[in-house]
Amino acid sequence: MTESDTARHSARRILDELRDLSRISSMGEKGIARQYLTPEHRRANDWMRAKFLEAGLAVREDAVGNLFGRLEGTDPDAPAIMIGSHLDTVVDAGAFDGCLGVMTALEVVRTLSQSGTKLRHPVVVTAFAGEEGVRFGLTYLGSIAATTGWTAEMLARRDANGISLAEALTEFGLSPERTDEAKLVPGSVAAYIELHIEQGPRLNAIDAPLARVESICAIRRYIVELTGEAGHTGTVPIPARHDAGCAAAELTLTLEREALRIGQNVVATAGEVRLHPNVVNCIPGRAFMRVDLRAPTDALLDELDRAVFSAFLPQAERRGIAVTKDCYFEVPSVPCDPRVSAVIDEAVGSVTGRFVSMPSGAGHDAGAMAAIAPVGMIFVRCERGISHSPLENVPEEDVTAGYEALLEALVLADQRF
Amino acid sequence: MTESDTARHSARRILDELRDLSRISSMGEKGIARQYLTPEHRRANDWMRAKFLEAGLAVREDAVGNLFGRLEGTDPDAPAIMIGSHLDTVVDAGAFDGCLGVMTALEVVRTLSQSGTKLRHPVVVTAFAGEEGVRFGLTYLGSIAATTGWTAEMLARRDANGISLAEALTEFGLSPERTDEAKLVPGSVAAYIELHIEQGPRLNAIDAPLARVESICAIRRYIVELTGEAGHTGTVPIPARHDAGCAAAELTLTLEREALRIGQNVVATAGEVRLHPNVVNCIPGRAFMRVDLRAPTDALLDELDRAVFSAFLPQAERRGIAVTKDCYFEVPSVPCDPRVSAVIDEAVGSVTGRFVSMPSGAGHDAGAMAAIAPVGMIFVRCERGISHSPLENVPEEDVTAGYEALLEALVLADQRF
Repeated sequence: MTESDTARHSARRILDELRDLSRISSMGEKGIARQYLTPEHRRANDWMRAKFLEAGLAVREDAVGNLFGRLEGTDPDAPAIMIGSHLDTVVDAGAFDGCLGVMTALEVVRTLSQSGTKLRHPVVVTAFAGEEGVRFGLTYLGSIAATTGWTAEMLARRDANGISLAEALTEFGLSPERTDEAKLVPGSVAAYIELHIEQGPRLNAIDAPLARVESICAIRRYIVELTGEAGHTGTVPIPARHDAGCAAAELTLTLEREALRIGQNVVATAGEVRLHPNVVNCIPGRAFMRVDLRAPTDALLDELDRAVFSAFLPQAERRGIAVTKDCYFEVPSVPCDPRVSAVIDEAVGSVTGRFVSMPSGAGHDAGAMAAIAPVGMIFVRCERGISHSPLENVPEEDVTAGYEALLEALVLADQRF
Repeated sequence: MTESDTARHSARRILDELRDLSRISSMGEKGIARQYLTPEHRRANDWMRAKFLEAGLAVREDAVGNLFGRLEGTDPDAPAIMIGSHLDTVVDAGAFDGCLGVMTALEVVRTLSQSGTKLRHPVVVTAFAGEEGVRFGLTYLGSIAATTGWTAEMLARRDANGISLAEALTEFGLSPERTDEAKLVPGSVAAYIELHIEQGPRLNAIDAPLARVESICAIRRYIVELTGEAGHTGTVPIPARHDAGCAAAELTLTLEREALRIGQNVVATAGEVRLHPNVVNCIPGRAFMRVDLRAPTDALLDELDRAVFSAFLPQAERRGIAVTKDCYFEVPSVPCDPRVSAVIDEAVGSVTGRFVSMPSGAGHDAGAMAAIAPVGMIFVRCERGISHSPLENVPEEDVTAGYEALLEALVLADQRF
């Protein structure tokens, strides 16, 4: 087989394994859902453990349900290079988000093993748990436990059935008192390289299969509550109204307009809007909104935030609408490491003939891992940019390109770190 | 007693009776609710019947639960002048909407009886049922039955508990086969004069207690469905989005802007907006809206409608948003009768010293009655313009003014019709 035949063969194996993995689901035949600390988490870890063992890797499940498969290197003192992503999914998910990164990492390590290639560093294939944040409303649970650790507040957080994270851990066979044991030893990780689907349309727009990620975006979310005055839609003249629905509409369009004006990959969205009383013959007296602002850097996020609210607040005041805003979620941006990025650029460039880079608008485990290790990411194009959907897909050629780039990046990182 | 003492005494009696009537409620002590064909409808009719009989009126309950109290005139061949409004309410209502018109009409007739004044026309105090449309989503049920009659489709309409209008009639002790018997005989009504609270802030704004109503507005309601494309709020750049929430915001503001531009008492409102999936980290892929357009004339309503959608549809197209719109409710405007209006102008002018007139932005039984009789309306100022709320209130001075104007209008109409 030629090298490209081998790579295609690997891509097919990755796709086959992703299909097998997608059958481990709480939705049965109806779709894919694997939430944190559920029976599906256990089944997926058991399936993955078997794959790791079959590939000759040493397996470790940590104190919060992350799974690691380790291939030793030639230098017993060298820190590990970690490659991978997460195994958990959203509800009614696709088969690729997270899992493509884990299965590609495993295939890369299998390729090295089978060809007898010895790296200097140990390589650890990483299958993080609890990245999506569906069950407890907390994202990156696995990678946070492996780096900065959890807080007591996180352990007390409850799911929709009233089960706390601590209780769920116990049910899963783990101990809430021992989550700190999941923390990786500082200095034990030389680099973390995560391959992940882009989850957006940019690579499609420029017809490129791969990109190097520049940074993982800063996110800030507000609950905005608008209070005007309800009234009869027939009897209150427009100038006498205090219509909270119109104010919500202005905020929605202000978010869009200011993000567009600033450019530079900032985005802002009014994803959730609830009017009250929300009936056709009543002027909305109140509006509840959750808005999401993102930017590749913290400075751009601050600029976007200022631009949106300095435009919106006077508009609301002119309408006689009272505004409260509560920032209930915030993560700073995480720039990728320049040395890891140089390696990824070289790998992506060698596979695709192009140097493409972009910020990540979604959060990833690499963002948490950056607290203890240099991180870098490879984005793989996904069909029509669709993600978090059963329609999520990556064609074989792009899986092949991703596999080749990750393999090359790993080999280069082994030489340079 | 002076004449103004008598009028104040009448106003106090009206307010006392409104307080008594407000206790007939399915909400008990918690608020006012009297829906059509419910036990509270029966209790309110029984209470009203006793009041009619006590005032010496002949009582008739018709085939759909409307209640009429008749005082004969001196001319046995003269058609009746009907005065009144409705007894049913919205949920958590005020005590004045509808009921103020019925109780003021009764007090006017009592005043005539007690002073021995004989009118030429019979006077019928009208207590319509089912005006608010809360239970079956159909407004003016009582006055429609009394004029143009019901359709089979209306009889089949079901409430939130799955009970059809026909079944509810039977439960109330009436017969769905006999609703046509409620139709008033053509030519039997010389005029219908309805006194009603304004339900808006205009009379407060000009500090006038009363107004003559010019017309009852035309109403058109659309269900507008907007289909874009859901997506990740972090990964889809603004220019690549098809955000149905932004399109809904544009329609909301277009309704407001075009109504304001046209002026002339047109109004347009996006009262109900539902986004899908309506979560903070997802670009809204779909929006469901119910919008309400109103104008004093049919021509102005058409102008408003054209202005709104000719501005909005190209905007939506530029966004790549598919729009469907379904007109699910429409009533034409009903101009008040010029002769009845002349009588009302004279009465209101004599009581308040001012000639104030305005279109009604809300619908009223007078709109249905116009199908068979000349109609006119008197609006009474309500505190802060608040209606459909427990805060609904009319101070004694304004009740007095309304009583005096209705009495004078009735006497003038008796002379001129």
